[in-house]
Amino acid sequence: MSLITLSTDFGTDDPYVGIMKGVILGINPRAVLVDLTHGLSHHRLVEAACKLAAAAGFFPQGTVHLAVVDPGVGGDRRALLVKTARACWIGPDNGLFTLILRGNPAARIYHLTNRRYFLQSISHTFHGRDIFAPAAAHLSRGLSPASFGKRIHDHVQLDLPEPATSQNRLIGQVLYADRFGNLITNLSGNVLRNHVRQQGPVIKLGRRTIRGIKERYGEEKPGRLLALMGSTGHLEIACNLGNAAEMLGYGPGKKMEISIDS
Amino acid sequence: MSLITLSTDFGTDDPYVGIMKGVILGINPRAVLVDLTHGLSHHRLVEAACKLAAAAGFFPQGTVHLAVVDPGVGGDRRALLVKTARACWIGPDNGLFTLILRGNPAARIYHLTNRRYFLQSISHTFHGRDIFAPAAAHLSRGLSPASFGKRIHDHVQLDLPEPATSQNRLIGQVLYADRFGNLITNLSGNVLRNHVRQQGPVIKLGRRTIRGIKERYGEEKPGRLLALMGSTGHLEIACNLGNAAEMLGYGPGKKMEISIDS
Amino acid sequence: MSLITLSTDFGTDDPYVGIMKGVILGINPRAVLVDLTHGLSHHRLVEAACKLAAAAGFFPQGTVHLAVVDPGVGGDRRALLVKTARACWIGPDNGLFTLILRGNPAARIYHLTNRRYFLQSISHTFHGRDIFAPAAAHLSRGLSPASFGKRIHDHVQLDLPEPATSQNRLIGQVLYADRFGNLITNLSGNVLRNHVRQQGPVIKLGRRTIRGIKERYGEEKPGRLLALMGSTGHLEIACNLGNAAEMLGYGPGKKMEISIDS
Repeated sequence: MSLITLSTDFGTDDPYVGIMKGVILGINPRAVLVDLTHGLSHHRLVEAACKLAAAAGFFPQGTVHLAVVDPGVGGDRRALLVKTARACWIGPDNGLFTLILRGNPAARIYHLTNRRYFLQSISHTFHGRDIFAPAAAHLSRGLSPASFGKRIHDHVQLDLPEPATSQNRLIGQVLYADRFGNLITNLSGNVLRNHVRQQGPVIKLGRRTIRGIKERYGEEKPGRLLALMGSTGHLEIACNLGNAAEMLGYGPGKKMEISIDS
Repeated sequence: MSLITLSTDFGTDDPYVGIMKGVILGINPRAVLVDLTHGLSHHRLVEAACKLAAAAGFFPQGTVHLAVVDPGVGGDRRALLVKTARACWIGPDNGLFTLILRGNPAARIYHLTNRRYFLQSISHTFHGRDIFAPAAAHLSRGLSPASFGKRIHDHVQLDLPEPATSQNRLIGQVLYADRFGNLITNLSGNVLRNHVRQQGPVIKLGRRTIRGIKERYGEEKPGRLLALMGSTGHLEIACNLGNAAEMLGYGPGKKMEISIDS
Repeated sequence: MSLITLSTDFGTDDPYVGIMKGVILGINPRAVLVDLTHGLSHHRLVEAACKLAAAAGFFPQGTVHLAVVDPGVGGDRRALLVKTARACWIGPDNGLFTLILRGNPAARIYHLTNRRYFLQSISHTFHGRDIFAPAAAHLSRGLSPASFGKRIHDHVQLDLPEPATSQNRLIGQVLYADRFGNLITNLSGNVLRNHVRQQGPVIKLGRRTIRGIKERYGEEKPGRLLALMGSTGHLEIACNLGNAAEMLGYGPGKKMEISIDS
């Protein structure tokens, strides 16, 4: 199977995503296309990087992931191909793959330069169509990553907030809220296991205090905040049958600290 | 063909739907995936049940329909597989399939319990990914429904408003409005034929009166309300070249009665 | 490959698009379906026609494009099949294909009338499901366009604004804004080459003046307006790392003139 996922900030009201799919299917008619999301934003690259990373583990071996959030299109930012043991990632060199690369230290990164695998005419404003889509299509037909260009090591990385500890306090950040208003933090299961030894840790978020880490939404009363390990393997703040982001006044790009007394 | 439809309340800004598709294609690479809608809401289960039922008759024999509106995830609500003569339905036991089951009294309902057909690690917050998607994928490969668990008969059913008659008056409810502002009611063609004998019945909706049931939008002047049999086989209130929901102040979840003098 | 694209004004909250796909796959299980956009509007047919035309060149030979923006459904507007050298287009006779036809003067237009290729029961409100989708599916299996009905020559055409010249001034119109706020005009590369001889032409848009036509967003400072040839081959007004439509107060359907001193 030639599975290709697409993630962009193009939305779905314009035909841009469909056009990329037309280009791909023209090159590889057997490609199976899956949309991850077209609601990304270049204003929120950290969120975009998190969403890409959340999906990585659930696609079959050999999947090609195409990600285009590209305000620097037409300038001197490079086009990249990232090869991990499991998958390939194609997109601009602006940090979108930061979390994929942290999770795959042995990944190889190639600078997409071989014009043989681009469209013949390349615009200055839509490399998703002219460069990334055709490269993904060719890659999905079995070409080796090295066919597309030289390896590089100086790729752009996002300055992702890292959990910190201060005395007995673990301090993390909210990375983004999903559609349900669940706040996804940068505190992974590993980090929590290392720092939190007591049964019911005290979690602070702005003026709010949450006690203990639950397993299920339903362990808290409807309309009440709770903390639990989310489906992405990170601590999430949720509200049973409600919207935690709204309750806490959290919006896109807002900085919100979370601290846990261990 | 292994056709699987997906309907959720996940929206399309998060990668959750894409992740479910990755899981499905990892198990059945030949699956053909069709999105019905990802704009459902657990606040409007009746509307969700209507939308699922509206689509049922237009997919080929053997289609597997996956529906995830699941605020009770991780609690004790059961996971279901519904087998009708035409198709299979997979999702939580919260009433989503009420209309499918009413239309198929001979349907068999199974409690999804066989962990062999789930992902190995099961979260408490995303059964769409860990239970429903893999079960749908295995089912689409030809497994028998009985492989997934035991039959049950005490499934949850929504308390759907039924048409009522009072003297010579037929009383129904608006169930939801679609994107065009058409109000879909619970009055089916059969119910209407049984009760309405005169040519131009008088239809009342709040303070408005509509005379007669039209066949086409264009039979009424632009901007005027009309009643007609909609594409789902139910009476709809529409506005030619306009938005009936806006004209009537109808919004999601609002209760609105419709009465017809027969 | 049987590639079918779908473009509608149905949105994605209702199951209408999914239902059309069910109908198509029931007739041609091998069809590969690609969504162009479901965010079209019958209030903005010019925009819809532009978006369809923008995608045409990027799909493989033999693609069937299905487009349903159809407020006149059930009335006497005809159903059309347009055959160009490269592709087929199916949809209502309301001008949606105006730009496709201008770009393909040798195209043949057929009036879809052969009920053999429709669903058996045809509603008066959803021809996308009952007529257009089944016709597209049959066509994608290799039927000749002439099987569907007779050729016509009196199809509906949109009154698209044409560029005009007055003395040394070229005058165009903004046709629509995309999701990024880029304003797409009716000034094509050919028109510009014929009229603009100087290096840095003076472009006027409302009270704003823009000097020169750039090649890349990054050639202007962040937050500043610029003009460049967009990916659709037309002059666009954009804002580097910003939203030109918001800056200029442009909204859907607004009339906005652009003039260039040549």
